[in-house]
Amino acid sequence: MVDTEREPVLILMFGATGDLACRKLYPALFELYKKNHEFAVIGLARRQHTHESYRSMIDRTLDQNSEQRRDFLERFYYQPLDVGQPYHFALLKNIAEQIDTKYNLHGNRIFYLSLAPRFFGSAAENLKKAGITETQGWKRAVIEKPFGHDLASAKELNEQLLRVFDESEVYRIDHYLGKEMVQNIEALRFANPIFESIWDHRHIANVQITLSETLGVGDRASYYDQTGALLDMVQNHILQLLILTAMEPPSRFDTEDIRQEKVKVLKAIRTMSRDTIANELIRAQYKAGVMPDGTRITGYHNENNIDTDSKTETFVAARFFVDNYRWSGVPFYIRTGKRMAAKSTEIVIQFKDITQNPFFCQLHKAGPNLLVIHIQPDEGLSLKLNVKEFGEAGDTIPISMNFSNHHDSKSSTPDAYERLIGDCLRGDSTNFTRWDEVAYSWTLTDSIVAAWNDIPLDYYEAGTMGPSSSDELLARDGFCWWPLTKME
Amino acid sequence: MVDTEREPVLILMFGATGDLACRKLYPALFELYKKNHEFAVIGLARRQHTHESYRSMIDRTLDQNSEQRRDFLERFYYQPLDVGQPYHFALLKNIAEQIDTKYNLHGNRIFYLSLAPRFFGSAAENLKKAGITETQGWKRAVIEKPFGHDLASAKELNEQLLRVFDESEVYRIDHYLGKEMVQNIEALRFANPIFESIWDHRHIANVQITLSETLGVGDRASYYDQTGALLDMVQNHILQLLILTAMEPPSRFDTEDIRQEKVKVLKAIRTMSRDTIANELIRAQYKAGVMPDGTRITGYHNENNIDTDSKTETFVAARFFVDNYRWSGVPFYIRTGKRMAAKSTEIVIQFKDITQNPFFCQLHKAGPNLLVIHIQPDEGLSLKLNVKEFGEAGDTIPISMNFSNHHDSKSSTPDAYERLIGDCLRGDSTNFTRWDEVAYSWTLTDSIVAAWNDIPLDYYEAGTMGPSSSDELLARDGFCWWPLTKME
Repeated sequence: MVDTEREPVLILMFGATGDLACRKLYPALFELYKKNHEFAVIGLARRQHTHESYRSMIDRTLDQNSEQRRDFLERFYYQPLDVGQPYHFALLKNIAEQIDTKYNLHGNRIFYLSLAPRFFGSAAENLKKAGITETQGWKRAVIEKPFGHDLASAKELNEQLLRVFDESEVYRIDHYLGKEMVQNIEALRFANPIFESIWDHRHIANVQITLSETLGVGDRASYYDQTGALLDMVQNHILQLLILTAMEPPSRFDTEDIRQEKVKVLKAIRTMSRDTIANELIRAQYKAGVMPDGTRITGYHNENNIDTDSKTETFVAARFFVDNYRWSGVPFYIRTGKRMAAKSTEIVIQFKDITQNPFFCQLHKAGPNLLVIHIQPDEGLSLKLNVKEFGEAGDTIPISMNFSNHHDSKSSTPDAYERLIGDCLRGDSTNFTRWDEVAYSWTLTDSIVAAWNDIPLDYYEAGTMGPSSSDELLARDGFCWWPLTKME
Repeated sequence: MVDTEREPVLILMFGATGDLACRKLYPALFELYKKNHEFAVIGLARRQHTHESYRSMIDRTLDQNSEQRRDFLERFYYQPLDVGQPYHFALLKNIAEQIDTKYNLHGNRIFYLSLAPRFFGSAAENLKKAGITETQGWKRAVIEKPFGHDLASAKELNEQLLRVFDESEVYRIDHYLGKEMVQNIEALRFANPIFESIWDHRHIANVQITLSETLGVGDRASYYDQTGALLDMVQNHILQLLILTAMEPPSRFDTEDIRQEKVKVLKAIRTMSRDTIANELIRAQYKAGVMPDGTRITGYHNENNIDTDSKTETFVAARFFVDNYRWSGVPFYIRTGKRMAAKSTEIVIQFKDITQNPFFCQLHKAGPNLLVIHIQPDEGLSLKLNVKEFGEAGDTIPISMNFSNHHDSKSSTPDAYERLIGDCLRGDSTNFTRWDEVAYSWTLTDSIVAAWNDIPLDYYEAGTMGPSSSDELLARDGFCWWPLTKME
């Protein structure tokens, strides 16, 4: 949204040998390089590497068909670094200055902290002490989730960062905000008066947000077991999807105006208490089961590196209310989980109907109007309408009108990381989360965590869409989860 | 909508050798026969035919691949008849009774008056005198347009008919009401709360109804030159499209409730006076021009059988207002003409936008939301929305979500005549025009005819979408005719 200048920059990549860097960050930087963004990179991690071996490592993450690889890789340098060792930072300062001069980067610096959060404090402190954050140019810090594990820990991290960086210099990544169709929610709502006219409790019966995974915990087992679905998915991605669906139009499409409206939604979400939570939330863990492709899955507590007594939830479904004038009484149902029947992220807006028709969920007859925002793996929109069946009979049947990102253009659609790092290079922080957003998200999830020990952990078979209690959550209100749909 | 019984019937087909009968009625009857409708037919016309030669004539209008042709044709009989000769009707009475007995038709009779209207009076009178309309079963009369040429002549025809038939027995055909997507307008509006919620002056900027033909007058020249586009197209088809778009939901989806609502729209249309008509209506005649396929077309007044001084309009564009609570201030623009650039019937609903954007008509940037109902040759719906362009750039671009009757099902979609004759066989008169509808349509067009002698006849080149004055009609209000779109 914000149109800013491209300026050359030195990227200091902490966690340079990590999984995220290799899977996402280097390929994204390569794409940005091909689009003429100007930068050089210093890779930083504890492991020993030469510039050459570091470049070889990066090279393996890139599309081997591109001739621009060599020029790109030449801009990468490596410096072994332990964030707790001040003299490593003194060395870094020198290298940084040399590279800055070599590439004429005007002292602009991005500190990409792809680190476990417990290292943020030392990293920031040592950067400051060594004078690396004091340059002639601008500086920005990019932070990955998890940003704490509750409000208190998030506050602590934030304070550590703010000793060195201004709030306006901190880019907190939620990579969902880089996804094509997530970025499209605003355009869909605010560039289409027909939707904005009916985007409220008078016309919308409920909103359903699904973020389902077929994967299990993989090699993140010990991290996941301490975290669970609520903190891993709801506190960040799902709340962001809810916010974008529910927010008021900003007074201007400026970064701060948009962020202001996002925070307003968070503040309006009804908190859950021990008295109410049993009616509002389901937490569940997967049992053994069979995936749709026939793969047999062991139960969560039998997975490697998971405690056999683990009570960690791998699934959450909840009913949220946004207590403001626009959304009074409209349930926002959310669900997310691992080892579910399908990998899909989508938002379904179910519009109110004239009558409550018990056949709606069968999909064989006319149903309510639905707007489906497909976020992944499909990218697009579906609008479910009713028409008179073509032919002699007068039956009304449901149809779907679709708009999808076709494969042709999909290959050229930037990945979420490319988009977000590109935003950071340009200094546009619209699609990053501001501190108060993070804080209110934690307040909300903290209240859930504080309340939910009284509600039992439910179980669901791997390869299903969750426990039946998740269906009952909607059925009580006369609704059902709409089946996930594939776009053609 | 109305579910009624199928009963056997004798069809008395007046004008049995005419163009309409051969092009539309026999093929439609054949389709209905294949769907197990039970009937026998007596063909009536002045020409001499034997049963056999009549059947051969019909056979040539049928799909020669069907094996059911022979059984179907056996149910056709011919009787030469001059509607002015009472003794022809005496003969007809006998034949009708024989066939009735032979096929056990219970005395049910449909009088299909595919005749020039000037013969209606004698036909009705002689049918009654001969006692043919008095049977044990029910009777229905099917009337083709033109039903008069003004209110007075329509009233006279109606009185002639009502001497023999009850209003409830008269089926006035407007074949547009048999078209798939015309019948779908009701379902689209009333089975989709998202549209009904925004179907009013608060959300709709204007409605555009186009019924354009590429054909000229053909062998109807002398008829057309006395009639013109207003009476040939606007008085019936276009007003019906406008009515279906504008009507209130009926209290029940019953024939009379629906008709009641349709009449209410007609009564609410603002009449034009000599003082206002110059701002509301364009009439024009085509000059020589070149069709998009390269065919050179002579000007209308040089066509065969057209007076070289003819002032008959081959094109009308108009701005109507429906003066009621729902449509206050919303222009309904209509246009129809011959020798236009494309053959198309469609209704465009243009929704209000937040701002008036002068670039909207260029279609390269975001535009207003449009709902297009494609009636012919395409059958379907398009919804024009704006989305953020996929990729890095943040531009908002227009997209189209479509639902179309695919070719597969199209071949099995009944033709308008099949549908309407089928309705008549079942006694469902919902999609036929009631007398007061006809009368109010004539009142409206009579007021236009009375007022428009003061406005000059404009001219347009054949192969265009009409004169520039038609564009100015909308431009004055800040609108433009949306380009006709082809569905994929």
